[in-house]
Amino acid sequence: MAGEGAAVRVAVLGATGYTGIELLRLLARHPRVRLTLLSSEQYRDRPVADVYPFLTGIVDRVLGAPEPAVVAREADVAFTALPHGAAARVVAQLVDRGVRVIDLSADFRLHDPAVYARWYGEHPVPALLAEAVYGLPELHREEIRTARLVANPGCYPTGALLGLAPLARAGLLAEPIVVDAKSGTTGAGRGAKVDQLFAEVNENFRPYGIGEHRHGPEIQQELDAAGATAPVLFVPHLLPVSRGILSTMYVRCAAGRPPLDELYERAYAAEPFVVLRGGGPPPELREVRGTNRCAVGWRWDATSRQAVIVTAIDNLGKGAAGQAVQCLNLWLGVPETTALDAPALVP
Amino acid sequence: MAGEGAAVRVAVLGATGYTGIELLRLLARHPRVRLTLLSSEQYRDRPVADVYPFLTGIVDRVLGAPEPAVVAREADVAFTALPHGAAARVVAQLVDRGVRVIDLSADFRLHDPAVYARWYGEHPVPALLAEAVYGLPELHREEIRTARLVANPGCYPTGALLGLAPLARAGLLAEPIVVDAKSGTTGAGRGAKVDQLFAEVNENFRPYGIGEHRHGPEIQQELDAAGATAPVLFVPHLLPVSRGILSTMYVRCAAGRPPLDELYERAYAAEPFVVLRGGGPPPELREVRGTNRCAVGWRWDATSRQAVIVTAIDNLGKGAAGQAVQCLNLWLGVPETTALDAPALVP
Amino acid sequence: MAGEGAAVRVAVLGATGYTGIELLRLLARHPRVRLTLLSSEQYRDRPVADVYPFLTGIVDRVLGAPEPAVVAREADVAFTALPHGAAARVVAQLVDRGVRVIDLSADFRLHDPAVYARWYGEHPVPALLAEAVYGLPELHREEIRTARLVANPGCYPTGALLGLAPLARAGLLAEPIVVDAKSGTTGAGRGAKVDQLFAEVNENFRPYGIGEHRHGPEIQQELDAAGATAPVLFVPHLLPVSRGILSTMYVRCAAGRPPLDELYERAYAAEPFVVLRGGGPPPELREVRGTNRCAVGWRWDATSRQAVIVTAIDNLGKGAAGQAVQCLNLWLGVPETTALDAPALVP
Amino acid sequence: MAGEGAAVRVAVLGATGYTGIELLRLLARHPRVRLTLLSSEQYRDRPVADVYPFLTGIVDRVLGAPEPAVVAREADVAFTALPHGAAARVVAQLVDRGVRVIDLSADFRLHDPAVYARWYGEHPVPALLAEAVYGLPELHREEIRTARLVANPGCYPTGALLGLAPLARAGLLAEPIVVDAKSGTTGAGRGAKVDQLFAEVNENFRPYGIGEHRHGPEIQQELDAAGATAPVLFVPHLLPVSRGILSTMYVRCAAGRPPLDELYERAYAAEPFVVLRGGGPPPELREVRGTNRCAVGWRWDATSRQAVIVTAIDNLGKGAAGQAVQCLNLWLGVPETTALDAPALVP
Repeated sequence: MAGEGAAVRVAVLGATGYTGIELLRLLARHPRVRLTLLSSEQYRDRPVADVYPFLTGIVDRVLGAPEPAVVAREADVAFTALPHGAAARVVAQLVDRGVRVIDLSADFRLHDPAVYARWYGEHPVPALLAEAVYGLPELHREEIRTARLVANPGCYPTGALLGLAPLARAGLLAEPIVVDAKSGTTGAGRGAKVDQLFAEVNENFRPYGIGEHRHGPEIQQELDAAGATAPVLFVPHLLPVSRGILSTMYVRCAAGRPPLDELYERAYAAEPFVVLRGGGPPPELREVRGTNRCAVGWRWDATSRQAVIVTAIDNLGKGAAGQAVQCLNLWLGVPETTALDAPALVP
Repeated sequence: MAGEGAAVRVAVLGATGYTGIELLRLLARHPRVRLTLLSSEQYRDRPVADVYPFLTGIVDRVLGAPEPAVVAREADVAFTALPHGAAARVVAQLVDRGVRVIDLSADFRLHDPAVYARWYGEHPVPALLAEAVYGLPELHREEIRTARLVANPGCYPTGALLGLAPLARAGLLAEPIVVDAKSGTTGAGRGAKVDQLFAEVNENFRPYGIGEHRHGPEIQQELDAAGATAPVLFVPHLLPVSRGILSTMYVRCAAGRPPLDELYERAYAAEPFVVLRGGGPPPELREVRGTNRCAVGWRWDATSRQAVIVTAIDNLGKGAAGQAVQCLNLWLGVPETTALDAPALVP
Repeated sequence: MAGEGAAVRVAVLGATGYTGIELLRLLARHPRVRLTLLSSEQYRDRPVADVYPFLTGIVDRVLGAPEPAVVAREADVAFTALPHGAAARVVAQLVDRGVRVIDLSADFRLHDPAVYARWYGEHPVPALLAEAVYGLPELHREEIRTARLVANPGCYPTGALLGLAPLARAGLLAEPIVVDAKSGTTGAGRGAKVDQLFAEVNENFRPYGIGEHRHGPEIQQELDAAGATAPVLFVPHLLPVSRGILSTMYVRCAAGRPPLDELYERAYAAEPFVVLRGGGPPPELREVRGTNRCAVGWRWDATSRQAVIVTAIDNLGKGAAGQAVQCLNLWLGVPETTALDAPALVP
Repeated sequence: MAGEGAAVRVAVLGATGYTGIELLRLLARHPRVRLTLLSSEQYRDRPVADVYPFLTGIVDRVLGAPEPAVVAREADVAFTALPHGAAARVVAQLVDRGVRVIDLSADFRLHDPAVYARWYGEHPVPALLAEAVYGLPELHREEIRTARLVANPGCYPTGALLGLAPLARAGLLAEPIVVDAKSGTTGAGRGAKVDQLFAEVNENFRPYGIGEHRHGPEIQQELDAAGATAPVLFVPHLLPVSRGILSTMYVRCAAGRPPLDELYERAYAAEPFVVLRGGGPPPELREVRGTNRCAVGWRWDATSRQAVIVTAIDNLGKGAAGQAVQCLNLWLGVPETTALDAPALVP
């Protein structure tokens, strides 16, 4: 896609949402990326560093409009961080014009148009659903390399799938599974909503969308593809933190203890971003903050014959922008850790 | 225990821990209580309002030592909020001397000395275990009324049991149950521990003691007594909030949807502190902050044939000091809501 | 205004903002108040306990519209917690109809129409400005008792004035004064604004409106009236907490150490809500959370010849709803602490 | 100190405190640094990544003891992040043995042994005080380059001095100055103290050490050296955030408005880590989180004839470890931004 060592021209559409600025934070330090176009409906024509002072001296571009024709002229690759529904049409026009797209919306994650319609409404360009590749490198690395369009996974599904996929492949997801997930607030975006105000979230904690969240069918689709034969019950909760998703997952194994150590070692030994904690201290949110890592821990409870799987990711990192950059690295043929190797910010 | 309308003389031993000051906060406004003795190892001989300025003009006593003989002379009732292990011997001496005791430690919650020994070590006064009444009024109201010694339930068990007991009684706890619980930090007490420092807890979240927490056998004991026939897997997590426990519980019902509305209505219709949310917005921590309430919500997931039960309590309120005052009210024969009717602090 | 012991009928207009629900929290437990009418633009026709589950069983009314004619028929006293500008006209109509009003907006705090116009725009009913009494009982108790219209002070001015008024009266505010104030987010109200989102406020801290905040002229007006002869520089900051204002104030005294202990003792010895900390541990936010208290501390720095005055209030308590209820208590002739004596929620 | 491009061998003594791990986070990615020795009293003989899982795969060394002889054999440069008092002797032995030292304790910041003694007690090696260079590159760059021993500035002084030094040099600090500073909790270190527990800091805010904090004389020393002729009153406050110091400073200029824009432009135009905000949106904590930046803003208040200067730093970055690495870069002759160019973590 670019001569060895040459820079690829990159556009970020929807650059001022939380996912957008995380992309900027990561791409600004990417040795093979030149940011050529940033768009923002809300802040058009303003320098992005005016909106986000922390970008002063780091990204010095003015925000423009996401015109597909302009994007196609100025960029080889586009990251689309636009609202669900709005993304699909823009993505389709970009792909038509030969721009490779990593879409961070939910618009191309579900393969089945009927399932999409049930959760999001009629899809505007259903034909593209079949072509889009689900951008979780740990599951679909080879297809990602050659895809024109990558559907970047949802934040919750990333945490759930990295924990459960090895069990699905081993045929161990044969009884109803529970995914009890807890997310920081940036997962809900930067829209001005009363229920995301500081005084509503602070010192509070609550489940929402119990069994009815849109990330449920996305988790189910990928687990089914990996070999699961049982339904997932997905229950998200809102944590009073800015970043991070911790998922505690419960898997019944009537047949007795599965070889958890072995299964995870085999699945992830060569993965640069999966950190295995095994029976040690369980994963915690802060160890992945600001990174593209996923920490995975597990326990076997002999009394109830259940495996407890715990994963921690940064919802803006491995759960969104970090993962998207990892996919870009696959396209560029550079090490997957390029621009993704900064340690977590602790404390 | 006291003439009608007369004040009962009350001692609080361990008055400067988080449970202790919550007791003071509540008892200071109790119309039938006279605080006659407060003890604190750490701050002995200092006015309690020096240690906690918010008590200025509210509780103006000097902190003393927990000498059983002195307590017996000056108090009719003692709340013991001492560390586990230390509490048992003091409690035994107080009971011997005719003081009625509500013990907020874990020392008298487990009935079986063998189970106690496995989790806490040898019990110093095992004979008293049989006499102590588990102080959850919604389950044991009548025994509490006449008890000499009430073992105030643990915070996690309170939230779990109020959610699960109606199902246990209906014979619905026949398959392994999951209690995924999330607690604020005051549950860990006010000891100076590195892992409770602000910078360790803030912007963090993690499970701990997966399947190995001491509150697990307590939950199991009470569920078994209520009719459960399956094991509970208890997994606590540490939330970056000061107060509150939210428990999300998963119950398989192979036989299909149980009559949840009816079960909870029947169990709690007359309970002054249980708020039923049913299928409405799920319970949240803040609605119970500073109160003795327990909010209970439920959902049925037809696909996975699981009931999701959610409860929210304040771990210092219904999970500790509030519940203890509720027990005192049973002893005094006053309305259970006496001194416990302040609305939650929202936001 | 009501026979002894009889209930006064009270309306709360704008009942679902943060100030509104704090009024409900306090008034629900007021022995002389009957809540007869609650209004909310946003949630009209819904039970208030649907919007705020914590009010279940505490306030069970349906939200209506703030029609002055209806209010006049159903209420003796109205608390108006409406947006600035919108409040003035409603207040004028209520006063005309004989309803006594405690207005929690900024519309009647400034006496001089020209000053009001400079900061808020033309006043819709300037004639009423002269009649309104500034509702800070510690400064204007007697005028409040007989007022038809009380302008409840701003949150920042309350904290600043309680700290500085004794110095102003003593003629000690003769050189430029600095008020460096830090407020929790509820001071900004419950409107859906991006800069009040959790992820914008959390782990952040910043000054705003340096020397240009609308509460500056309000502080100046009252200090001038108390005897100040120098300008105040008011600099607010946004704290990542839900409730509370801590003000650190710097007063130059070229003449040397003023008799601070004596001045504060004299000013506040009989005040039920002012807690003097003097040279002890300085005031902290949490000791006043949920209360109508103001903690006041002071230090003298001999080297720079400056007094440092520190006050802490709850911006929703003494800074808004609590103070309004204190004024109501003056009207009712009941002890000022009625319904305002709950201890702070610590921790 | 090392051939061009070759790695310098670096020891970090006290590697598991908050300053220590921030050093590891930064040095692990420094292209000219090889970490050869890490010490920790508390966790000796454990791999550092066991204590801090986020360092897995980033720093894989085992923690040792801070033996000067060993350090001298294995390292060219030592960062000492030991407690005050304990540091001085170790530092002296290292310097004696030819190790260049950047000391992050307070032991060598004050030049005058008498001043040191007043605030910290008798100095164990007073002779070294004269040699140590105060490691604020923006004030002492050239002396740092050749120093054997750099005394890394305190966190509060860094924020205050970067804001005030340009005014001191211009002769504008001629009247008593106020530094009202607000710090996150990591400034207090990782010791297990009750007043640093989550439940003590969360939802709280308070001043401490008013006019009596040890960083006061440090600020005064450097301002005096820069030309100040008036005393500073330093008032720190504890913020419920993990990282960051925001300082709001008040400077009286009886002569009228000083040329602030010009003074700051002149002082900092070439500085890589000072970001000038001037009259724009004031600095905020989050824009510097995780960085070595200092954002500086200013306002002139004509009414009170006072300049308001605001600075924001990360107390662990520019206020500690970042600044130390900046000094190392001066020693190495590499660009000062080496290993210090990661954007802030926002949100």
